[in-house]
Amino acid sequence: MQTPSQPAHPFDIATQLRALSEHRFEGCTAPAYANMVGPYGGITAAQILQGVMLHPARLGEPLALTINYAGPLADGNFELVAEPLRTNRSTQHWALRLNQAGAVVATGTAVTAVVRETWDAAESERPAAPPPDDVPRVNPPRRVPWMANYDNRMVRGGPLPPTAAEAGADLGEPALQWVRDEPGRPLDHLSLAALCDVFFPQIFRRRGRWVPIGTVSFTTYFHADAAMLARVGTRHVLGQAQSHRYRKGFFDQNAQVWSADGELLAVTHQIVYYKE
Amino acid sequence: MQTPSQPAHPFDIATQLRALSEHRFEGCTAPAYANMVGPYGGITAAQILQGVMLHPARLGEPLALTINYAGPLADGNFELVAEPLRTNRSTQHWALRLNQAGAVVATGTAVTAVVRETWDAAESERPAAPPPDDVPRVNPPRRVPWMANYDNRMVRGGPLPPTAAEAGADLGEPALQWVRDEPGRPLDHLSLAALCDVFFPQIFRRRGRWVPIGTVSFTTYFHADAAMLARVGTRHVLGQAQSHRYRKGFFDQNAQVWSADGELLAVTHQIVYYKE
Repeated sequence: MQTPSQPAHPFDIATQLRALSEHRFEGCTAPAYANMVGPYGGITAAQILQGVMLHPARLGEPLALTINYAGPLADGNFELVAEPLRTNRSTQHWALRLNQAGAVVATGTAVTAVVRETWDAAESERPAAPPPDDVPRVNPPRRVPWMANYDNRMVRGGPLPPTAAEAGADLGEPALQWVRDEPGRPLDHLSLAALCDVFFPQIFRRRGRWVPIGTVSFTTYFHADAAMLARVGTRHVLGQAQSHRYRKGFFDQNAQVWSADGELLAVTHQIVYYKE
Repeated sequence: MQTPSQPAHPFDIATQLRALSEHRFEGCTAPAYANMVGPYGGITAAQILQGVMLHPARLGEPLALTINYAGPLADGNFELVAEPLRTNRSTQHWALRLNQAGAVVATGTAVTAVVRETWDAAESERPAAPPPDDVPRVNPPRRVPWMANYDNRMVRGGPLPPTAAEAGADLGEPALQWVRDEPGRPLDHLSLAALCDVFFPQIFRRRGRWVPIGTVSFTTYFHADAAMLARVGTRHVLGQAQSHRYRKGFFDQNAQVWSADGELLAVTHQIVYYKE
């Protein structure tokens, strides 16, 4: 947990925006979240969602977020447009756009909603997994700076199978990992949005090696409200990820993110470009 | 199959648009696809995607489509804005908006892409199911006119479990159904987009009765290109649908759509409002 005397968390630095006008914000790419080329897609999603969170007209909490990565984002400043196009009694619909140097680099939509007590039920259970302390942390590779901001503990499935025998052994089962921000930071909708992109591209696992990839479109549905996120705090969350199909340069990947206590926090999907 | 002497298919009538200017189209709600209140969400998605398909600047075929249902769509005309915001070498990013009577009724984004031959693989298999001719057709209820445009054959899971005993028996398994346009129509990206919303809300199955619901956000990733869709023709496709969580007025639902030959055509997700 942070105290006022500690420096700001890298995630909070990365997601700082400056309001330019009613629906326009200025932000900056964060070296701490750099990927091999351009920024980690999850931090871009969080930066875009931050425009919604900071907008004075916002109603409710994030329910759905779709981000489309339209072009490369260069190191430096960008302009975000986050505009509520329709506000109903309990839901609000947002159009999102990231511009840099006169070009559109990302598009998106979001829905925020005021949640209310209803009949609730689960149709899925948190997968069984040993506690995070019993699973070794993935060593973040130097060439992928953003990974140092996550404490990743792979229960199953990656990022790369160390041997061909192990590769075959677990291919039929979804990848499973514990993850939290590093250093610890209480989970909120912004960091959950970023974390939904943390799962290793399943094509690495299937091919047993790195493959050039890039997320094209990324959607997250939030089941967690602020109270549920507060119960998670700085603890690890458990993610399960899987793909259905790799075909003609694109594969889909989906993941479910649970709290250690077994609450489903978010479900997320993406379609990813690959070159192979 | 249609011949020139047959009347136009209801789906083709419903998805007719008139170009107003470079990025603006006019369309009209279709009585044949009316739901209990407003139109079937799948037809609205197809009408919006039609703007992309008809746009003279379109590059490639649909890869990802997200539609957010922002407000009620009244019977009558609407205006669609479908604007390509960025065109790359092989992908194109679209902003989508449906307006009626000065209000935004839907927002969305799409990505179209030029596909190319690559290493391909499946990570999922078409679920086993008896052939569609061996499964009785669901009787479309009169109060849900759009359902008469689909030949739905439920292998498992709904729409309503006829007895409490049966309700419990299959609740742990995904719903499974054959479906095609009725009358038959060769599958294309537009009709596949509409069909991805055809699956019965899983909350009906879980509660064993109708519950007021409405899709809030709906995303589809297309694995099928035109050549794969041509191989399906007018045959039924097999859909598998499931939910993870019903909580505080919203549930998620996802589905996978396969050809009878076992090719994965699309994966689709939605977040749905419910009142219970």
